[in-house]
Amino acid sequence: MESSSALLIGDLAGVAVFAASGGSAGVAKRLDLFGVIFVGFVAALGGGIFRDLVLNTQPVAFTDWRYGATAAVAAAAVFWLHAQLERLRRTVLLFDAAGLALFTVTGTLKALDSGVPGSGAILIGMMTGIGGGLVRDLLVGEIPVVLRREIYALASLLGAVAVVGLTRLGERTTLAMIGCGLLVFVVRLTALYRRWSAPRPKLSGASGD
Amino acid sequence: MESSSALLIGDLAGVAVFAASGGSAGVAKRLDLFGVIFVGFVAALGGGIFRDLVLNTQPVAFTDWRYGATAAVAAAAVFWLHAQLERLRRTVLLFDAAGLALFTVTGTLKALDSGVPGSGAILIGMMTGIGGGLVRDLLVGEIPVVLRREIYALASLLGAVAVVGLTRLGERTTLAMIGCGLLVFVVRLTALYRRWSAPRPKLSGASGD
Amino acid sequence: MESSSALLIGDLAGVAVFAASGGSAGVAKRLDLFGVIFVGFVAALGGGIFRDLVLNTQPVAFTDWRYGATAAVAAAAVFWLHAQLERLRRTVLLFDAAGLALFTVTGTLKALDSGVPGSGAILIGMMTGIGGGLVRDLLVGEIPVVLRREIYALASLLGAVAVVGLTRLGERTTLAMIGCGLLVFVVRLTALYRRWSAPRPKLSGASGD
Repeated sequence: MESSSALLIGDLAGVAVFAASGGSAGVAKRLDLFGVIFVGFVAALGGGIFRDLVLNTQPVAFTDWRYGATAAVAAAAVFWLHAQLERLRRTVLLFDAAGLALFTVTGTLKALDSGVPGSGAILIGMMTGIGGGLVRDLLVGEIPVVLRREIYALASLLGAVAVVGLTRLGERTTLAMIGCGLLVFVVRLTALYRRWSAPRPKLSGASGD
Repeated sequence: MESSSALLIGDLAGVAVFAASGGSAGVAKRLDLFGVIFVGFVAALGGGIFRDLVLNTQPVAFTDWRYGATAAVAAAAVFWLHAQLERLRRTVLLFDAAGLALFTVTGTLKALDSGVPGSGAILIGMMTGIGGGLVRDLLVGEIPVVLRREIYALASLLGAVAVVGLTRLGERTTLAMIGCGLLVFVVRLTALYRRWSAPRPKLSGASGD
Repeated sequence: MESSSALLIGDLAGVAVFAASGGSAGVAKRLDLFGVIFVGFVAALGGGIFRDLVLNTQPVAFTDWRYGATAAVAAAAVFWLHAQLERLRRTVLLFDAAGLALFTVTGTLKALDSGVPGSGAILIGMMTGIGGGLVRDLLVGEIPVVLRREIYALASLLGAVAVVGLTRLGERTTLAMIGCGLLVFVVRLTALYRRWSAPRPKLSGASGD
């Protein structure tokens, strides 16, 4: 992503898919139209607001109306179309993984552009990718997706490391960044379908799982 | 609100009523004195801290001791007076709606004064009004009031739109801003008393509500 | 703590013990390795990120790799060693109280160094000490430790007041600051062992406790 317009497109696509995931969570909780839009907003804009606060800039979600409008339209669309979406549950999971991929890449790039060192940029990229889903789940009282079994944060971590590594090698091309996003996306989806998870603690005498 | 002192008075009044709402939530959960004051603090200062972080200024809650003192006194008052307040539950709801109205107006104005575009100022005003109650409810394990049935965020949204609209028309007078606050207050209270709510999704086969 | 290296050492020690507390909470919830590390991260870095956002600087957690590395190592160590730690539960409580003490002192000092007035520095020191444990508990669905019965926030408050008072008296020596930390530590542990708590509201007709 050499140009800022490519970054913007990636960011807005992430906003749309996370708003859809938040809207779906709201519909599942039987919230009303405004509740559904609110959860969509928080999911779509939460990660980016955190990123921009940490980078000490005014959150782009409040300075560029296209972010809020994209989130509202996507969440409202889920509200009206939820009957169809229920049948397309796999599609929602696809969208969620796409949002994780998009925000990880754009978040890491924005952090690098702000002069944050590589290790910090990796953390900020991860938090941008994970943040919206985390607040969404806390808001509706679910166990945050990042704490559930299938690999989630690790997929984002791998993508952020790849972004920083390729940038250091002078390979920060749009194609390479799309590759990093695909890495996150494919690892996350494979983990979901194959039920990959990290090792878990063995507690003696604990009730089985 | 032409002068900064009118803004300050509105802000401190919002702090007091939200601290009272937080203190009441703490008493209802049978927290001890410090727990009650802590929840009061978070409810009273949360929205404004978020607003100031987003506007890239040091939160006024930490630079002006009157904010913290007002919150502590109001929450402690609820702790000692809760027996009476229980009988005055409607008064508490009145205070909460007043806080939503006050913070929506002052938050939107502060955002405009910081050079945020109108659409962003509306979002920031809403988040300032909603923020404290949201964190309060997450903290004590309740469903956030903004996600409950009666119209809440929409009342704030209407007020923030009115503030931006009137400012653009050159009508940013104290009287006009009081009118915007009253708009939020009246819509919220009417929604509470008449049980107004937005449309909700129809899920086929879902357990009724 | 006259030198910045003493502040850094205090900060990193706080990161390590809070990461251990977060990792323990994750193990108790039977999260996998990455979940345990994630909760450790949030507990260890949450308070300091909040502090730095409020002080309008880029969070040191993202600009200095030693913070993230310390948190990851400490949380991972808990994951692998949890069998021993279960037997050492009192040690974990000791560590948690140590983290509260360390972050209260370093948070208050950093706030004073940024030019925040004394009353604000006290609040920021408290929020730094309390913040990580608060987010940790919200994340794993526990009642936040600050809202539980034994004195917690008050211990932090006393320490922050002592830091500001001694600084005003020109006694900001490393020894004096260690004394402030010990004050927090001893008050917190005594409260735990003696089950000290603040007064609680008496609700007529409420179910007993």
